[in-house]
Parts: sequence; structure tokens; C-alpha cells
Amino acid sequence: MGDFLPDNASDWLHWIDLLGVAVFAISGTLMAHKKHMDGIGVIVLATVTAIGGGTLRDLILDVPVFWVSDNSYLYAILLAALITIIWIRRSDRFPLRFLLHADAIGLAFFNIMGAQKALSMGVSPVVAVMMGTMSGVFGGLLRDVICREIPLVLKGELYATACIIGGILYTLCLYVGMASHWSMAAGILVTLTIRLLAMRYHWQLTVFHPPTNH
Amino acid sequence: MGDFLPDNASDWLHWIDLLGVAVFAISGTLMAHKKHMDGIGVIVLATVTAIGGGTLRDLILDVPVFWVSDNSYLYAILLAALITIIWIRRSDRFPLRFLLHADAIGLAFFNIMGAQKALSMGVSPVVAVMMGTMSGVFGGLLRDVICREIPLVLKGELYATACIIGGILYTLCLYVGMASHWSMAAGILVTLTIRLLAMRYHWQLTVFHPPTNH
Amino acid sequence: MGDFLPDNASDWLHWIDLLGVAVFAISGTLMAHKKHMDGIGVIVLATVTAIGGGTLRDLILDVPVFWVSDNSYLYAILLAALITIIWIRRSDRFPLRFLLHADAIGLAFFNIMGAQKALSMGVSPVVAVMMGTMSGVFGGLLRDVICREIPLVLKGELYATACIIGGILYTLCLYVGMASHWSMAAGILVTLTIRLLAMRYHWQLTVFHPPTNH
Repeated sequence: MGDFLPDNASDWLHWIDLLGVAVFAISGTLMAHKKHMDGIGVIVLATVTAIGGGTLRDLILDVPVFWVSDNSYLYAILLAALITIIWIRRSDRFPLRFLLHADAIGLAFFNIMGAQKALSMGVSPVVAVMMGTMSGVFGGLLRDVICREIPLVLKGELYATACIIGGILYTLCLYVGMASHWSMAAGILVTLTIRLLAMRYHWQLTVFHPPTNH
Repeated sequence: MGDFLPDNASDWLHWIDLLGVAVFAISGTLMAHKKHMDGIGVIVLATVTAIGGGTLRDLILDVPVFWVSDNSYLYAILLAALITIIWIRRSDRFPLRFLLHADAIGLAFFNIMGAQKALSMGVSPVVAVMMGTMSGVFGGLLRDVICREIPLVLKGELYATACIIGGILYTLCLYVGMASHWSMAAGILVTLTIRLLAMRYHWQLTVFHPPTNH
Repeated sequence: MGDFLPDNASDWLHWIDLLGVAVFAISGTLMAHKKHMDGIGVIVLATVTAIGGGTLRDLILDVPVFWVSDNSYLYAILLAALITIIWIRRSDRFPLRFLLHADAIGLAFFNIMGAQKALSMGVSPVVAVMMGTMSGVFGGLLRDVICREIPLVLKGELYATACIIGGILYTLCLYVGMASHWSMAAGILVTLTIRLLAMRYHWQLTVFHPPTNH
């Protein structure tokens, strides 16, 4: 990773990664609650959502899967799920907005972390942007498929699009020589901003003519 | 594997593994029958159920996938599926109880075999318990997702919980110095017993207040 | 690959692979249109359909994933998806027949390419036939699961069966000493022909007695 990161970078990269894992665990827990799941199924769904994207990324890059040699990720998931459970038990309405916002934050973190890890393995920028997008959307895709929801990533509102734009900006920042941590911050912020604005104003990419009926 | 297993262990480990694969193949075949599938789709579903969990385990541990270099697993799946098909054709009612029991036995075998393989690769006990649970539940999760059923693992009745408790017991037994094969037997029995009792008495872990309606 | 292929083979193998990826991308795009998806979700579904099977094949064979070090696959997917989108926008009816035919062609290509790659890694013929089938059906299985359709592979009409017969023929051709490219052509043609005939005449493999009602 020496090409992209200063020496003391692995520390704060790890914390950002943990944060991304935790917010996706929260979004998995909230979805489980929405679907009236209970018991350990909640933890299972939180875990799948939180580590699904990064696990696929590491398998495809053929590097050690990030949570196998480092217990802190599993503890972060458990902690995030437990706090969310306690919080839901004390509250009395479903926080759909929180689910979507937690999902957006996890998406932004995982997108740029995924692209960064892919670049550090020497792949081309095109593949790095795709690996970032995949890291960002795959955990949530698994969550939605398991819960038999239409996946968020397929419902428009610039979900994968935000990842692609944020990823391209991140690789461009690196290309023009910006410091690694500023490039990452820029990529994360842009991904998050586009996704939040798209949710707020229901932005859509339209590629087909709208069907007259279905 | 030298740390955990006597020299002649690989033989009976292989047979236990084959047995776990076969019972999961049976559960996949029964599910295919329940969903009115037919033809080779039955074999496909039996195969996915039987090798899904172990394949994911081996990919994440970065060891050769267990069925690639050893044809006996594929033959065991075909044999189990064929016997189940013949048996269903001669009987005239759907054996839902058998589906659930075959699933429970496969779950118990895969759970402890997965934890054992993970430990033999040098991972921490926490990750080993999780890898065991994942090996146990993932094949059935794929089966249920493909068939568009709500996954058993998310419906409570101590499905993943049984794996976690059995896995913790197994690692504890090894930790206090119990022989590897006795530790495995204890882990398998405890996983199976908890799951069967939970099915029998509809045990549930409740983490959320019950919803008033849905 | 020296055992199975002449020296100038990698070139036309690469073009066949690109063609298979492109037709599966088309089938993913058509399915997205059928399900009234829009925006980048179309591209996501096209990509998952096109690279899902080959990615799983490469992960299990533990070789570098084919699209990571070669951008041409991602460009082929984008191009195929864009052309399909433009074509659908100009036409006014849903080309269901084209979806099924594109799927059949992709199936035949991926089946034999998967078996060839597996054989070149030294696996047994049984595993090679299975890896070919898996390469062929997995992308479409993901497409259908994500779109909450009953997977084509489970609906009969000799979907996986065509792969298995084509794969067996391909390995037999190699075994009797036929040149690699003729063996591949034979395998691809037979897979495609069986699948197309099964679609045309609604061939089914029946293993269970037909249910009286459901």
C-alpha cells in the first residue's frame, strides 16, 4: 500500500473500515426489524450486510479476507447490532430514514475503501472503480435478496451511480497527485452527498422510456 | 491439522464430511420436491445446498475447495439425490419432518467440520466459531433464497444459535485438552440436540418486543 | 493450457469469452427492462449476469478472476448493455424470445469455456463438467434471484441438462484425441442445440410423479 498511503495511514484506515462495517451492521439490524425477524437471525443479517461486500472484494483480489485475521470487525458488528437492538426496544416507531442514511454512509465508506484496496493491489483504475462499487453495493444486495426486498441498488436514486462517480473522482484525485487521505475524504464525501441528494430529491437515471403500464 | 487430529483421523473426518454433504443433498432434494421443481433442477438444488457452505468456507480460508480435487463428494450428492427421488416417488406424502431433520443433521456436521478446518488453518476461536456457523447455515440459506422461501436461519428456532453454542463448546473442549474426535462428537451432538429441541418446543430467542400486528 | 490448446488459441478463446460475456450482458439488460428497472441498475444486472458464473469458476479454481486483469470484459459488458438499451428504446415490444435465445447462447459458450479452463487446471473430467455447468448457469441464477424470478435453471426445459450433456461430449472429444478447438465447437453446438430444441418443444426431464394439484 506504500504507493498510496503514508506510513501512519493503516491506523485510521482501520478505523474508517470498522465504522463502515458498523453502519452496515446497523442497516442490516434495522432491515431485520422491519421484516419482523427475531433472535440470532438479526445478528446473521447484520453480519452478512456488513462483511458481504468486503469479503467478495478480498476473494476476487485474492488477498486474505479482512475479518479472518482481525477479530475487531466481528466485535464491531456485534456491538453495533446490540446497540441498535436496545435502541429499537426503547423507541416505538420504525426508523426507515435511519436505515436509508446508515446504508448511504456504509455505501460511501466501502466504495472508497474498496477502490483503495484494489488500487493497492495494482489493478487498473477502471477495475478499481468497479471493485469499489461492488464492495459498496454487494452487502446491501445480499441483505435485500435474503429479505426478499427489491434491492436498493436496482431501484434507481443513484445508488451504484453515486459509487461510480465517487470512485472516478477518487482515482482522479490520486492521479493529479493529491494526498491519499484527502483523495479518500473527497471520494467518500462526494459518494455520500450524491446518494443523499438523490434520496432527498428522488433523482433517477432514466435509460428506458417509461412504460405506459405494467 | 496435526495439532488437532490424530494421524488416522483424516479417514473418518472424510466420512463425516461425506455424510454431512449427503444429508444436505437430501434436504435440497426434498425442498425441490416441495416447490414442485423437476428434472435436473432437483440435482442443482441438492448440489448447491450440499456444497454451498463448505465452498464459501474454503474460499474464505483460501484453501483448495474440498470437492474440486475429490470426486467422492459429487458422487455422494448424486447418490443421495437419486435415493431421495426414488423414495419420494414410492411414497405419497411430503416428508416435511424429514426435511427439517435432515437439515438439522447437516447443520450439526458442517458446523463442527467448518470450525475444525478453520482452527487447523490457525484462525482465532471467535473466527472459527463464525466459520463453523457459516459453513452450517450458508448452503441452506442459498437453498431457501433460490426457492424464494424465508430462510430457516432467519426464522428463529435457534438455528444459527445452535451452531454458535455447539462451536463454542467444541473450541472449549479442545482448549481444556480433550481429544479432537471427542471434542468434535460433543460439538456435533450439542448442536444437533439444541436444534432438535428448539424445533420440537418452538424455542425462540426474542430480542425485539413482539409487534402488535404485521 | 498447452495440453489442450494450440499456440495461437488464446486469441480466439478470448474472443469467444468476450462474446459469451456480451450475450449474457444482453440477457441481463433485457431482464432488467422486463422488470421495469432503470438507470444504472440495468448495468449492474447486466454485469452480474455476465461475470457471475466465470467469477465463481475462477474463485473455486483459485486462478486470477478473468476480468480483474483485463478491462476488455467490462468494456464488452458496457457496450452490449448500451446497444441493447438503445435498441429497446427504438423498438416498442418486449423481446422475450431474444432474452431466452441470448441466454441460451451465453449458456453454451460459458459451459464449454468453463470446462476447458477447469481441465487446463488439471481437475478430473467429472469436476470439469460440473465447473462448466456452474459457469453457464450461475450468472443467470444470480440474475433471476436478484429479480425475484423463479430461476430458469430450476424450471426444467433441459437447462443444466444441456450443459451436462455438452460438457460430457466435449471431454469425450478431447479424450478420443480430437483437436481442442473442434472439441469446443462440438460442445458449444450440442449444448446450444439441446437447449434450443428443449425451449422449442418444451422438453422436460420428469423425475417426480406430476403433482395432482398445487
